[in-house]
Formats: sequence, C-alpha cells, structure tokens
Amino acid sequence: MVYDVIIIGGGPAGLGAAIYSSRARMSTLIIEKAGCGGLIAITDNLENYPGFDKGINGFELTSKMEQQARTSGAEITYGEVVAIETDETLKKVILTDKTYITKTIIIASGSSFKKLGVQGEEEFIGRGISFCATCDGPFFKNKEVAVIGGGNSALQEALFLTKFASKITLIHRRNEFRAAKILQERVAAEPKIKIILDTVVEEITGTQTIEKIKVRNVNSSAAEEIPVDGVFIFIGWTPNTKFLMNNKIALDEKGYILTDEQMKTAIDGIYACGDVRKKSLRQVVTAVSDGATASVSAHQYIESQNL
Amino acid sequence: MVYDVIIIGGGPAGLGAAIYSSRARMSTLIIEKAGCGGLIAITDNLENYPGFDKGINGFELTSKMEQQARTSGAEITYGEVVAIETDETLKKVILTDKTYITKTIIIASGSSFKKLGVQGEEEFIGRGISFCATCDGPFFKNKEVAVIGGGNSALQEALFLTKFASKITLIHRRNEFRAAKILQERVAAEPKIKIILDTVVEEITGTQTIEKIKVRNVNSSAAEEIPVDGVFIFIGWTPNTKFLMNNKIALDEKGYILTDEQMKTAIDGIYACGDVRKKSLRQVVTAVSDGATASVSAHQYIESQNL
Repeated sequence: MVYDVIIIGGGPAGLGAAIYSSRARMSTLIIEKAGCGGLIAITDNLENYPGFDKGINGFELTSKMEQQARTSGAEITYGEVVAIETDETLKKVILTDKTYITKTIIIASGSSFKKLGVQGEEEFIGRGISFCATCDGPFFKNKEVAVIGGGNSALQEALFLTKFASKITLIHRRNEFRAAKILQERVAAEPKIKIILDTVVEEITGTQTIEKIKVRNVNSSAAEEIPVDGVFIFIGWTPNTKFLMNNKIALDEKGYILTDEQMKTAIDGIYACGDVRKKSLRQVVTAVSDGATASVSAHQYIESQNL
Repeated sequence: MVYDVIIIGGGPAGLGAAIYSSRARMSTLIIEKAGCGGLIAITDNLENYPGFDKGINGFELTSKMEQQARTSGAEITYGEVVAIETDETLKKVILTDKTYITKTIIIASGSSFKKLGVQGEEEFIGRGISFCATCDGPFFKNKEVAVIGGGNSALQEALFLTKFASKITLIHRRNEFRAAKILQERVAAEPKIKIILDTVVEEITGTQTIEKIKVRNVNSSAAEEIPVDGVFIFIGWTPNTKFLMNNKIALDEKGYILTDEQMKTAIDGIYACGDVRKKSLRQVVTAVSDGATASVSAHQYIESQNL
C-alpha cells in the first residue's frame, strides 16, 4: 500500500500531525520507536498545556492524543526507522525489517536530552530530576535545587528557577560559563544562585525523592555532598536525525532540521515538526501545532501534485 | 501600575499567551471586548484540539484556558481597545474610558467571520451554520449541506466536505468563481457538488435545526428553496485591527499583521498571535501555540532591554 503520509515519531508533534492528517482522510501511518508520548511522557504533572486547568500527567495527555489519532483513523506501528529514500516521487521509509512507501513524510522524531550518565540519574528522572524549568519549576517553590550546565539554557533556567526555589546551586564542569555575558552577569548578581565551577556531579541519591548530590572538583579532586530536592540538567539536546545521514535535508550546525513556517524541509513532500526542527520554543503545544501545520502542508502538496 | 505584558483579546491565542506570561511571573493583563473564548467558543464540539480524544465543547475548552490563565496569575478586564501608543519605551493601551501602561503588548484580537446578513443567520450559528469545515465537517456525514462563497476557502472546504456530506450545493453570487483554476476543475469534476452561480442566499429557516435555505438568482430574480442540514459560510474574514489605524505596525493587503516566526511585529516590544496575524493555518492549537511563542518573545525583550 502507498500511504498519503508517514509520520516518523509518536510524540506530541507526530500525534498532532496524525490527528490532522487522518481527519483530512489522508491514509496515515505513525512509526514509533518505543511507545508514543515522546519526552513529555516522563513529566509527572504538566501545567502549561492550554486546556487542562488543573494540570495533566504527561503520559495521560499523550495517551489521549494517541487515542484521538487512532479514533480519527491513523495507524501506529512500532519499529526503528534507519533511513528514508526521497529521490523518487513516491518516498521510502526503511525500517530494520521492512520498507514502507508513501507520498509524503512528516519527520517528528524529536530530540533526546543529554544525560549526565551518573549513578541515580535514571532512577530519579521524573521524580526530582527535570529537563525543563518552565514545566517543573513551580513544583520547587521554597525548595533547594541544583542546575547542571554552563550554556545559555542552564543559566536562563537557573534564573527562571529563582522565581520558585529558595536556593539554586549552579554547577558547571568548566572554569567559565559559555552562556551570554548578560546572563552571566545576572546569575552573578542573583543572591539565590550559588555558583560552583570546575565541578562534576558523580552521584544522585535519595529514597523516595532526591536528597543530595555528590560532586567532585576536577582540579583538587575534593568531593562534596550538596543537599537538594531537585536537579535540573541542561547539558544539551541531541536531535534524533541519525536516519537522515545520507540525505539532502538541510540541517543546522547542531543537527536540527531547517524548515520554513509551513514546516517544509529542503525536499518537496518532506516536512519536519516539533523538537527535531530548528525553532525558538520547544513546548508540547508548539510541537502539536507544528504537527497540525505540517499535516496541512502535506495535504496541499498531495493535491497540488495530483498524487 | 506598569504591566510587563498587556494582551489584547481573550481568545485561544490571548489565553495561550497569558498562561505562558503569567507562569513566567510577568505581570499580565488580558483586555477582552466581550467574553473570553474567541470565535471557537461558538463551536459545539471541537474534535481536533489535541488532548481531548472525545472532543470538547468550544466554550468549555476556552473556559478551562481562561481558568488556567487566572490560576497562573493573569488578570482579565473587559473593555474595548480603541488605540495603542508605541512611540515611547513604555507603551499605552487606550480604552474608551481608561489607559493602561505596559512594557510589551501582545495583539491577539483575532478576526471576525464575514456574515451573510440574512434572516435566520444569527439564530442558527453553532446549530447548523458553520464557518469551519475542518472543525464541523464530520458532523454532516451523509447529510446535505450548502457552501456559500466563491474563493479558495469556499471551494477547498466544499471539496473537503465531500468526505462527509452526501450532497453539497455550492452557491456563489457572481457568474464565476475567483478561486484557483485547479480548485474550480476539481469542484466541477466532483459528482457530490452541485454548483449554483449568480445566486444569493436570502433566508435560512428551520425549527430546532436548519431545514432549508431560500435563494434568489440575481439575473432572473427567480427564487428557489433548497433543503439542507447545514450551511457553511466562507465569504471571508476581517482581522480585528481597527485600533491599529494610526500605527506603524505592518499589515498585509487584507489587514492581517505581519510577524516573524517569533511573533514579532514591525515595532519592538509589540507581538501578534493567532488569527489576527498573517499565517497559513488558523486553528485553536496554532493560535494557542502562537500565544506561547509571543509570550516567550516578550519575556526575552524585557530581559534584553533591562525594562
């Protein structure tokens, strides 16, 4: 069978695209690597998705979107996309064990948080470890948190957390931040933020919730324990675009897919939406919105080409 | 008091902006003309807003967003904005009886559907009269509908409705469509669509739901009654930008506000989001997403200017 649209990735962007595609009666297949939901499925309580005034669990929200996509007629299959072929009018999406044919492709493969790779990290993800101050900051009102990282994101989010947390320990492995000067000045002037440079996190410990982190100075090798209720990790993201390696889809220097406002990539009939594309605000609602827009662009392409 | 951000309009775009602004601890005021909710508040069952897999009433959805904005700390006041003053660093938002001072303005004033202005129209809005085939098409499965208009929207939406309705009568007041040729060819080739040109609607009648429309040929003056279950009106929108009359905010030829992907207008510190800006897909989720993005842009502006 030839699909009208194949969506790579079942996070909010992919599900948003699927809802709009299938409601427009395009034959729609989502290919998801693990389980639908994307990065947000690990968030305990999402307060900023408009429409849920009491907040909603990330997994519950994306389960509803998945159900909505299925009800509208979208199919979902599980597997890992290893490559796409885009030279012909009909495109190919290649999995390890199967190849699908489609008129259009919407790439919604998202990005992955870079992790510290230390003991205790996997255990407390979603239970005190967060990758999003905007999402989770309000849960740490009058509590002490650590922020890990030295770039713009780490410093911006540390500053954002001063609205909630009573103390923020900002930990960076190098002897200076690479964030913008103005952010460094603000962080230095903020009494709630304590800066620890030349230092790496070695372990995160606690029982039900996080209780402390163990850090080590990279010069003196001196170890220290810092009591915290939460740990915010901002050491970067990696866009999930490995399967695009042999393609002509334009990426920025960090590997994010370049699109226009209609989500069109450099190749006709191929769209990208959500965290995998270069954009200014990575949130559930902007991902879902991107997906809807990508789907409408794919629909217009199929009509204009009489496919 | 000087607000961090004043949002003009309390539809989905304005409410999305307010949720994000107030969660970022910006002092936030929404100024709404009538009641919050915008155009979507008249939609009986909205099936395509991601996250509500059983659909949701338009008024109920926007009430939740309004509650979410209030809970986050946004203020809402009612009044009609007649002008804004943007020459100074601090901007003014002028109502008929009051002036507010603010660091940034987010324009979310939406657009209005152009109406036919005939008898029965007001009565059946939301009960058989629709301005959105994507939203309401599925409710007319195997039913007969009329589509009014002759532009791209009218023809595209008439074609979209063939997926659901058993018969579509496409009525246009002129003797030819102004829509793209390819759309005209498709409409002509579609057996479900019956075209009536040179004809205007004079009345919409029914009891609980719409039963028929009365039309009249503009040349022969002959009247006719057409039995229908629904009427889709696509005779255009008007962006609500009258209060921008004496301003330097760039608009397109139809009056929509021009922004970049970060929702910035031609004036620093002034943003526009949702239906009032020039964009490709006007849906609740894209409006809300625009609002979130505008709010983050306003926040960055305030920080960068040390306001």
